[in-house]
Amino acid sequence: MRTSIATVCLMGTLDQKLVAAKEAGFDGVEIFEPDLIASPKSPEEIRARAQELGLSLDLYQPFRDFEGVGPDLLEQNLRRAAAKFSLMNRLGIETMLLCSNVATARSGDEQLAAAQLRELGVLAERFGVRVAYEALAWGKFVDDYEQAARIVRLADHPRIGVCLDSFHILSKGHDPQAIETIPAAKIFFVQLADAPILSMDVLSWSRHHRLFPGEGGFDLAAFMGHLVRTGYDGPVSLEIFNDTFRQSDPRATAIDARRSLRLLEDETLTWLGGSSGGRTEQMSARPLPAVEPPADINYVELRTGAIDDMRLLLEQLGFSSHGRHRSKSVELWSQGAARVVLGRPEPNQPPPTVAGIGLSVRNPATAFQRAIDLFATEIHRPEGPGDEPLVGVRAPDGSEVFFGREGETAPRWVREFGEPSNRGTGLIERVDHINLAQPWQHFDAGVLFFHSVLDLRSQPSMEVAAPVGLVRSQVLRAADGVVRIALNLVPSGANEDAILPQHIAFASSDVLALAREARERGFHPLDIPANYYDDIEARYDVHPELLNELKKLNVMYDRDETGEFLHFYTHPIGTVFLEVVERRDGYEGYGALNAPVRLAAQYQQRRATREVPA
Amino acid sequence: MRTSIATVCLMGTLDQKLVAAKEAGFDGVEIFEPDLIASPKSPEEIRARAQELGLSLDLYQPFRDFEGVGPDLLEQNLRRAAAKFSLMNRLGIETMLLCSNVATARSGDEQLAAAQLRELGVLAERFGVRVAYEALAWGKFVDDYEQAARIVRLADHPRIGVCLDSFHILSKGHDPQAIETIPAAKIFFVQLADAPILSMDVLSWSRHHRLFPGEGGFDLAAFMGHLVRTGYDGPVSLEIFNDTFRQSDPRATAIDARRSLRLLEDETLTWLGGSSGGRTEQMSARPLPAVEPPADINYVELRTGAIDDMRLLLEQLGFSSHGRHRSKSVELWSQGAARVVLGRPEPNQPPPTVAGIGLSVRNPATAFQRAIDLFATEIHRPEGPGDEPLVGVRAPDGSEVFFGREGETAPRWVREFGEPSNRGTGLIERVDHINLAQPWQHFDAGVLFFHSVLDLRSQPSMEVAAPVGLVRSQVLRAADGVVRIALNLVPSGANEDAILPQHIAFASSDVLALAREARERGFHPLDIPANYYDDIEARYDVHPELLNELKKLNVMYDRDETGEFLHFYTHPIGTVFLEVVERRDGYEGYGALNAPVRLAAQYQQRRATREVPA
Repeated sequence: MRTSIATVCLMGTLDQKLVAAKEAGFDGVEIFEPDLIASPKSPEEIRARAQELGLSLDLYQPFRDFEGVGPDLLEQNLRRAAAKFSLMNRLGIETMLLCSNVATARSGDEQLAAAQLRELGVLAERFGVRVAYEALAWGKFVDDYEQAARIVRLADHPRIGVCLDSFHILSKGHDPQAIETIPAAKIFFVQLADAPILSMDVLSWSRHHRLFPGEGGFDLAAFMGHLVRTGYDGPVSLEIFNDTFRQSDPRATAIDARRSLRLLEDETLTWLGGSSGGRTEQMSARPLPAVEPPADINYVELRTGAIDDMRLLLEQLGFSSHGRHRSKSVELWSQGAARVVLGRPEPNQPPPTVAGIGLSVRNPATAFQRAIDLFATEIHRPEGPGDEPLVGVRAPDGSEVFFGREGETAPRWVREFGEPSNRGTGLIERVDHINLAQPWQHFDAGVLFFHSVLDLRSQPSMEVAAPVGLVRSQVLRAADGVVRIALNLVPSGANEDAILPQHIAFASSDVLALAREARERGFHPLDIPANYYDDIEARYDVHPELLNELKKLNVMYDRDETGEFLHFYTHPIGTVFLEVVERRDGYEGYGALNAPVRLAAQYQQRRATREVPA
Repeated sequence: MRTSIATVCLMGTLDQKLVAAKEAGFDGVEIFEPDLIASPKSPEEIRARAQELGLSLDLYQPFRDFEGVGPDLLEQNLRRAAAKFSLMNRLGIETMLLCSNVATARSGDEQLAAAQLRELGVLAERFGVRVAYEALAWGKFVDDYEQAARIVRLADHPRIGVCLDSFHILSKGHDPQAIETIPAAKIFFVQLADAPILSMDVLSWSRHHRLFPGEGGFDLAAFMGHLVRTGYDGPVSLEIFNDTFRQSDPRATAIDARRSLRLLEDETLTWLGGSSGGRTEQMSARPLPAVEPPADINYVELRTGAIDDMRLLLEQLGFSSHGRHRSKSVELWSQGAARVVLGRPEPNQPPPTVAGIGLSVRNPATAFQRAIDLFATEIHRPEGPGDEPLVGVRAPDGSEVFFGREGETAPRWVREFGEPSNRGTGLIERVDHINLAQPWQHFDAGVLFFHSVLDLRSQPSMEVAAPVGLVRSQVLRAADGVVRIALNLVPSGANEDAILPQHIAFASSDVLALAREARERGFHPLDIPANYYDDIEARYDVHPELLNELKKLNVMYDRDETGEFLHFYTHPIGTVFLEVVERRDGYEGYGALNAPVRLAAQYQQRRATREVPA
């Protein structure tokens, strides 16, 4: 599959965009006209630059408001087109995108539009170029791809074909199956965009909220499947108008984009395999290495300057120390299957406090190769002789994900540390979930990363009111529900109070017993206000004795149709804190109603102590 | 009019919210339940704190999903209500907001809902409280205020009334006139919200995009007018869910909020005066001092460290120096009626580079008093003996607005400087417009400030693609079109390239002549790429000679139905640059299609030279 990306997807100058597309491994780009107009480089220089980078220039776009007009305007439009065709000759671009008329068309007569397109085709032929006609979802008379295909058929000129854009088709709920009725030779170009399922006017939706494939709610594998069945073998190009991507590092965005296409290619092969008679020879890529669904969170690596405070906290929660690693300057703490690798931040490279996540998979090598094929960056960590090799990649937010072998009660690498200091009471069983605050620039890329590499699946996203703004929270879960990672989108307010800490939640068989034990060891949990417990009492018929216990121990409470949720929080240490949760009778949530109370308590505490660096 | 604000409008802890509301001059607040639940203060402490601040606690909100349910759930709901009524007693709050059921109602039978509300009324009576029933725009069965009023009438209990919320009424396009059919005694509470006219699902619109009155598109004066006619004399309260306000300094937001209500009060009086038989005794405030529409921009004050560069630039553009002020460390440059007061930034208080705007009005004292009545902050500037006093206020973005007397060819204060160095060629006539980059936190407040204080009117807002993201641009114009101020919302990307400079555009009678003259004086304009002129040629039938001249002089071009626009830009000096524009035959725009090209050229230049501090 030839991959392409429209320059409008990326931040910066045209040259920055070209370099970013190249570095991410795209085969070509669409030149978005405003990017060309604003460039100080001449068309010839741009052409040479693309050649130098090994990028093809696949499309010049957009040309607007051509067809369905009166004779005077047609004359003007042909003059305008000739100027752009001439420009395309200088750029060496063969195909121009023509959007269906949104402004100047005075008739929806398909014969008229076709006749005018034919005139355009004659002109295009003179310049050796061709025109891909696209039905915009908000076109004045033409807003449906089947209609556009009909007009192209009527135009009946070799230089006139269609452009198919998944957004314009799927946003209107049109069935992409009819793509199969269009001859491949008449499909001149294909643009792909995903989008969250929003209920808003389609123009705003399109201009601000498009996402890369797999980040939104459209079934793009089916769209691509129908396309492949036509025999289309041209470029598949991303055209994503997104307010966030426009403001973010173009290199990171381009990699996110390229990853989305690689995953889609794989999903399309699966979709075609599941249907009858698929033509897949156009899909050149070999399938991705199989997903290795993570069985559990093997360990979490914390990096903190306040290492003594964290040690004390782990001790209070009943963790045992295994001492220092035999060759690396990290130490291990464990309880049940919960393991925390603890170290100080590396100099000059402050990592997120949750610096690494170790996941158990059946086949670490396969998991690693899938991640690499999905454009993740390999991590190299120095290893001592005989140490279990660390196989891992970097997530878009900079945190590291390592793959270890599943099915071992205690993984082999644990032996590289000492014996545990004590057996503990074992009230903590494992990591329940990890909560990673994401910079707003990387949120969608983070979701796609964990989904594509590990097949973690998005739960419905939520908005949680923090004192400093709304936090968008997206839980990603393995199919079996054991591995859960929540990504939180931090409000962008440039406010020192707006820092959201990361956190690790441990699963306990008895949160109340643990909270009591920890208290005896000197632990003081995050204070939960009395008003919260009054509300719990009003909302649920909690037994007064339990309510009293919750209150005394600062344990929070929630309930769903099936079960109950009890959990408490530690104070933050630096930008990380810990949580202990108990899920009774299959409770599946995360205490969403409690999150604002927790965030407010942390905010109060930060204001009171300013312990968290700004 | 008693003014109130819901705590959910403001950022921070409950205490920060109370203080902000008080400082902005609100009479009371609505307690938003999650703010209470998250507060470490007991209800009694919150009550005492409000008393100490002199704020009334006007409403406890929201109570949800009560009516239209089966008997079991009704029992639970009454238990829940009793707990909240008891809490209200502790807070000393009399009125609770009940939203129409969105989840658990199983019937839309108005008799059933009324009977259940009556039961709630009986319970409320026992606690000495009352319930204001509000039709949510997305209520399951009840989503119309007339329906809610009917159910309240049927409930027929003195403790049950309605709450009217302008958002829920106007977002659905319901006519607020029927408010007049509701007896004032049955209107227990009134919530006000404005919103931009958006086409999206009403829940998202409500939860994220509400604005303070006057910042959106609803006719709130008419809404208020109908309300006043009922004889309602309770609080008028702002309930604004807005993602930006939730992240911004609560003190600034509260002042913005209070200003919006003050303006609305005035507009309501006008609306009522224009209709027959208005009852206005409830509107206690005296009318605002009349608007003094600014006749022109008297001067602009620039503060820049690179003062020599700016001097040279002004000289090149044909400005004359009047030398230093006789007592202040600023100097004056003028050409025609365009005046630039130039100084260095004050130490320790870096002002925006466009530090002040002098406006000519008929009556400066009235203009000043109106601004003060609208909660603007007075500016005190040291004055030398005999100096013309500076009468001015601070805009939300920190820049200063001064009022001078109109109708003087050269204002008196000009004599406090020396004689102009030369007469110049006078190709610049006056300031055409000023372009102020606004921090995202202050954008809506900035628009409201200029609208309310000076009656500048919003033109349709635009989005301009900059290389670092979309810039939202909002032009505000005096009714006669002479004074124009554009507010630009800077993308929030934490990127050193994301700085948008401010600029001053001067009106010229002959931009090409000026550009030629300036060039002879050594001026080099911002470079505009050749590709831009190719596009102009393709788009418009510009005479080749003119096109050649434009290209040679880096002058940009636009055209609308009536006329033409020619303009060029200087290179930025610090974070400010200058523009010279020529409007031919009544052209009214700002060259919107040219803005992205200009922004890209500036971005290229910044990247090349890094002249602009990050």
